[in-house]
Amino acid sequence: MVEKAIQEIELPESPESLYGPIQYFMNLPGKRIRPIFVLQALELFRQAEFDDAKAALCTELFHNFSLVHDDIMDKADLRRGFQTVHIKWNEPTAILAGDALLVKAYDALLFSKTSEFKELLISFNKMALAVCEGQQLDMDFSTMERVSLPAYLDMIDKKTAALIAFSFELGGFLGNASVEDRKILFEFGFAMGRCFQLRDDHLDLFGDEKVTGKKRGGDIGNSKLTFPVLSSMEHKDSSTFFSLWTNKELDPELRISSILTWMENSGIPELSEQYLQEEMDRGIQLLDQLSSKNSDSSDRTIELCKALAFREK
Amino acid sequence: MVEKAIQEIELPESPESLYGPIQYFMNLPGKRIRPIFVLQALELFRQAEFDDAKAALCTELFHNFSLVHDDIMDKADLRRGFQTVHIKWNEPTAILAGDALLVKAYDALLFSKTSEFKELLISFNKMALAVCEGQQLDMDFSTMERVSLPAYLDMIDKKTAALIAFSFELGGFLGNASVEDRKILFEFGFAMGRCFQLRDDHLDLFGDEKVTGKKRGGDIGNSKLTFPVLSSMEHKDSSTFFSLWTNKELDPELRISSILTWMENSGIPELSEQYLQEEMDRGIQLLDQLSSKNSDSSDRTIELCKALAFREK
Repeated sequence: MVEKAIQEIELPESPESLYGPIQYFMNLPGKRIRPIFVLQALELFRQAEFDDAKAALCTELFHNFSLVHDDIMDKADLRRGFQTVHIKWNEPTAILAGDALLVKAYDALLFSKTSEFKELLISFNKMALAVCEGQQLDMDFSTMERVSLPAYLDMIDKKTAALIAFSFELGGFLGNASVEDRKILFEFGFAMGRCFQLRDDHLDLFGDEKVTGKKRGGDIGNSKLTFPVLSSMEHKDSSTFFSLWTNKELDPELRISSILTWMENSGIPELSEQYLQEEMDRGIQLLDQLSSKNSDSSDRTIELCKALAFREK
Repeated sequence: MVEKAIQEIELPESPESLYGPIQYFMNLPGKRIRPIFVLQALELFRQAEFDDAKAALCTELFHNFSLVHDDIMDKADLRRGFQTVHIKWNEPTAILAGDALLVKAYDALLFSKTSEFKELLISFNKMALAVCEGQQLDMDFSTMERVSLPAYLDMIDKKTAALIAFSFELGGFLGNASVEDRKILFEFGFAMGRCFQLRDDHLDLFGDEKVTGKKRGGDIGNSKLTFPVLSSMEHKDSSTFFSLWTNKELDPELRISSILTWMENSGIPELSEQYLQEEMDRGIQLLDQLSSKNSDSSDRTIELCKALAFREK
């Protein structure tokens, strides 16, 4: 239903120089996980219809807007294995294509059949602003030697979790859920968003290379401040970690493997897994508090989230 | 009222790296003409209140979003005599600040007291997409030797007139005007938007240097395809024009003055003034067809538009 809705997004033919790049980017292979969350949340209350999928696309369109712009800011050449818009075309085109995607996200919202449309728009705007803040914080952090763990969690809450939270909340709006139930869905989504990002951080450092197909520790090579790195900095025996982390003379591969060994000997992977598990448990308990829900859908929602939060690649 | 509303726009304190640039740009000196159009149109139906000014700011916020992004694309160093955001800070910051301004524009829409909020959002989205298209067309045109006059008018309709048209239409929404009256306001705004842009084109070439304080023909120096240039290309004796226009070996100042002399001898300034006058007359006739209006406000609206459309600097 989501894929069909994507194919039916109405875009003008011309100017091709604006809409061509948008078509290209929207059709890159993707998991479409955010609109799926919307429909999953909606199905806690009633069956999803095609117009719901069209409304749900506001999350996918917004996500793609933020990716197109982030790729410019991060100077990324590839996205999902394909050329980014600013590389395949140019920066001005990528800026405008992103802008138009954001407008189309607001357009998709209009398919929502909810009695509280203004409330929905307020939520969307809050999310959108949070995502902008998160990207700015992420850029700010990339020039810093160290940030606190709470500051890092605040950043991923904004950059990643806010949109996942909104996706579940939107399902509540579409299902005409009560204000309380919508709030629960939002908080549940927030917890899940954190889990997914923490898993990202974890897999980069501790994933099984045979399963992920990627060399471990790419984030360390890029000196990226992620959850395991910041936890290491707050560890009681962090002096060895710091001496390795700041040693720019060490052979890069040796530096990465030494840091990973220190982390494994210091319980960092377990710390990160434990934090994720606690967020997951908190989320499941939240979902249990919904005043009314279809329990089959609830099980399926949790199953999907667990599959993503504990993925091996 | 508009300035007061601008001061009351709610922006978080942090991250300063995102909201500082937004505050800076919103506080650059500006005519605030678009929200004034909104309130002017509203006053055709009823007196404006402070919340109307807050809603009207969606046009100013949108305008500023598009300026911040356009300045990146056009590599402009200055805006209203001050450093542009991407120069004073950097490109990533300017991209994000623009994005956040667009979100804030949607936020301002929420202050609209209209029974047809969804219709209003549809109009805003249409306008926003048109402005993106107009900017893309403008960039496409800058690499072309020639475009047709209708293609040029289509570009300025989108890049400039669409937002002016929406501003007047929004006044109609706020005043709970009928669908027909809203359509009239929209078309009136469209005609005025064209007038303002045509006047821009005209003044650059034929303005009185003592009044404008700028040397004539800057657009010719930049080989910009504007209304007078495209009219010259369609003139029956265009061969002399083309030989001057394409002569890159001529001293730049001599090239500009020769082209201006040819234009003046070929009736181009009159052509441009006549086209503007026709659009103005069409607009005034349209406004006259409003089913209900306060005639004092109507006179003031026309007066304001004429002052802008026939400005000398």
